Amino acid sequence: MNEIKIFSPATVANVACGFDVLGFCLDSVGDDMVIRKVDKKGIRISRIEGFELPYETEKNVAGVSALAMYNAIDVDFGFEIEIYKRIKPGSGIGSSAASAVGSVFGMNELLGRPFNKTQLTEFAIKGEALASKCEHADNLAPALFGGFTLVKSVVPLKILEIPCPNDLYATIIHPQIEIKTSEARAVLPKEVPLADAITQWSNLGSLVHGLHTSDYDLIKDSLKDVIIEPHRSKLIPFYNEVKNEVLKAGALGASISGSGPSIFSLSKGLETAKTVKEAMKTVYAKSGIDFDIHVSKINTKGIKIID
Amino acid sequence: MNEIKIFSPATVANVACGFDVLGFCLDSVGDDMVIRKVDKKGIRISRIEGFELPYETEKNVAGVSALAMYNAIDVDFGFEIEIYKRIKPGSGIGSSAASAVGSVFGMNELLGRPFNKTQLTEFAIKGEALASKCEHADNLAPALFGGFTLVKSVVPLKILEIPCPNDLYATIIHPQIEIKTSEARAVLPKEVPLADAITQWSNLGSLVHGLHTSDYDLIKDSLKDVIIEPHRSKLIPFYNEVKNEVLKAGALGASISGSGPSIFSLSKGLETAKTVKEAMKTVYAKSGIDFDIHVSKINTKGIKIID
Repeated sequence: MNEIKIFSPATVANVACGFDVLGFCLDSVGDDMVIRKVDKKGIRISRIEGFELPYETEKNVAGVSALAMYNAIDVDFGFEIEIYKRIKPGSGIGSSAASAVGSVFGMNELLGRPFNKTQLTEFAIKGEALASKCEHADNLAPALFGGFTLVKSVVPLKILEIPCPNDLYATIIHPQIEIKTSEARAVLPKEVPLADAITQWSNLGSLVHGLHTSDYDLIKDSLKDVIIEPHRSKLIPFYNEVKNEVLKAGALGASISGSGPSIFSLSKGLETAKTVKEAMKTVYAKSGIDFDIHVSKINTKGIKIID
Repeated sequence: MNEIKIFSPATVANVACGFDVLGFCLDSVGDDMVIRKVDKKGIRISRIEGFELPYETEKNVAGVSALAMYNAIDVDFGFEIEIYKRIKPGSGIGSSAASAVGSVFGMNELLGRPFNKTQLTEFAIKGEALASKCEHADNLAPALFGGFTLVKSVVPLKILEIPCPNDLYATIIHPQIEIKTSEARAVLPKEVPLADAITQWSNLGSLVHGLHTSDYDLIKDSLKDVIIEPHRSKLIPFYNEVKNEVLKAGALGASISGSGPSIFSLSKGLETAKTVKEAMKTVYAKSGIDFDIHVSKINTKGIKIID
């Protein structure tokens, strides 16, 4: 096998109470990538469609993670990467993570899987760091492992796969506005009230338990963020309106996807997830801001090979 | 049935990363109590052995929780309570919680179980508040439900039962010193660094996952407290020495039990728990401070009727 085509999924990080540690994987949104073994040594980005991204390997997220892996192996050939980008950069649903994992996942397949998924995440972290200026794995882990993941620590990298109920769907609205990462970081407090921190870890512990036990009521009761949302939600127009309406529409919860501007919600069942989509649409239709909305089952497999 | 004898277990609250929400139940340490239906209406404490505690119903933890339940029912008889106290008040292993749950559990049995365990906890909270000046359930919940519990919220009261591996044992040392609750509270910061809070909730999420999956390595890796321990451990003589030695002896982790002064550790298997006991003993033997040490399997049943 000299060439492989893969689907690299979009992901939602933070997941309300799980800031900086929790994430989940989407099914219906993601990039396609082709990875090809070539005679010429090194890593080359040979094609990019969808969005304008740099072709220079060292300046491209997929290139940087590919290089991290390439430098860890000793082969007399190289790889070409084609990127068919569908996840808009800066949307808050793991666009850079999808690129970062895509190249290393594909290369690993072509090499006969010398690396496990945690090792692939280590390489992908280097690519992610190019985009987000820090080494984190909250989008990488769910993209590679699928389902819900909890990144217990980055050094050493420890990723936990949290099970989830079968009938869990996400609805995500992406308002076409830009939130600078620096701005999303600047609004975060350095210190937080101990009482709020306790509420947050109580919710995260409960969410992990609710996912393990498929307890939708508990998932609903735990999808709350008292630490980050009060600050970052101000950067997203109509955030409170969207949240109120999707909860009225039957969603289990809603919060900021990653550092925004996308807003995700989780629902039991596809029908509710679609009702939630209509509720989101109604709020944003009168806003004058362009947006798109995705409905997706939780993708428990993660990144995959396609024909 | 007019009389019932019960064993009301000691408990460990906070459990390293689970400050204010997590707790577990002990098997080998606890109070005995006798609850008796009597003709005379009202609640009367008729006997107290072991430690000096007030006989006035309104000043006794077991009496106050009993009254809370008694006021919620309409019966033409009363109850007598005998307390055979073995858990030293102020030891940090849920002495007041054992008293508070004992009376209401016993009365509920004699009444034919009109209340569920969450409702019993609600009554017991009133007794616990007498002792600790605040309404909390971190010791009450594990005493009533057994095993590990996560108190997701107090208002409304929501208690989650977290499963745990079969072979999990606790070793607890109780140095015979007094730490005033007010002092244990005063050393806590009102605000904590966001980065530390993230570490704490990552550990709590991981601990819940580790308990669900019986992953001892993960339990070990998660039994860490970066928020409370740095402050409260200073109040406990030889805390760091004990912790270092029990970890060397093979314990999965160690931390402050409740607000101290007891220190608990968790181990895989009885043999390791006993080795940990010797390690604790060695540290404290040369301290000049009296102490006692308990080794106990995790009690997954909680409070129970005895002959």
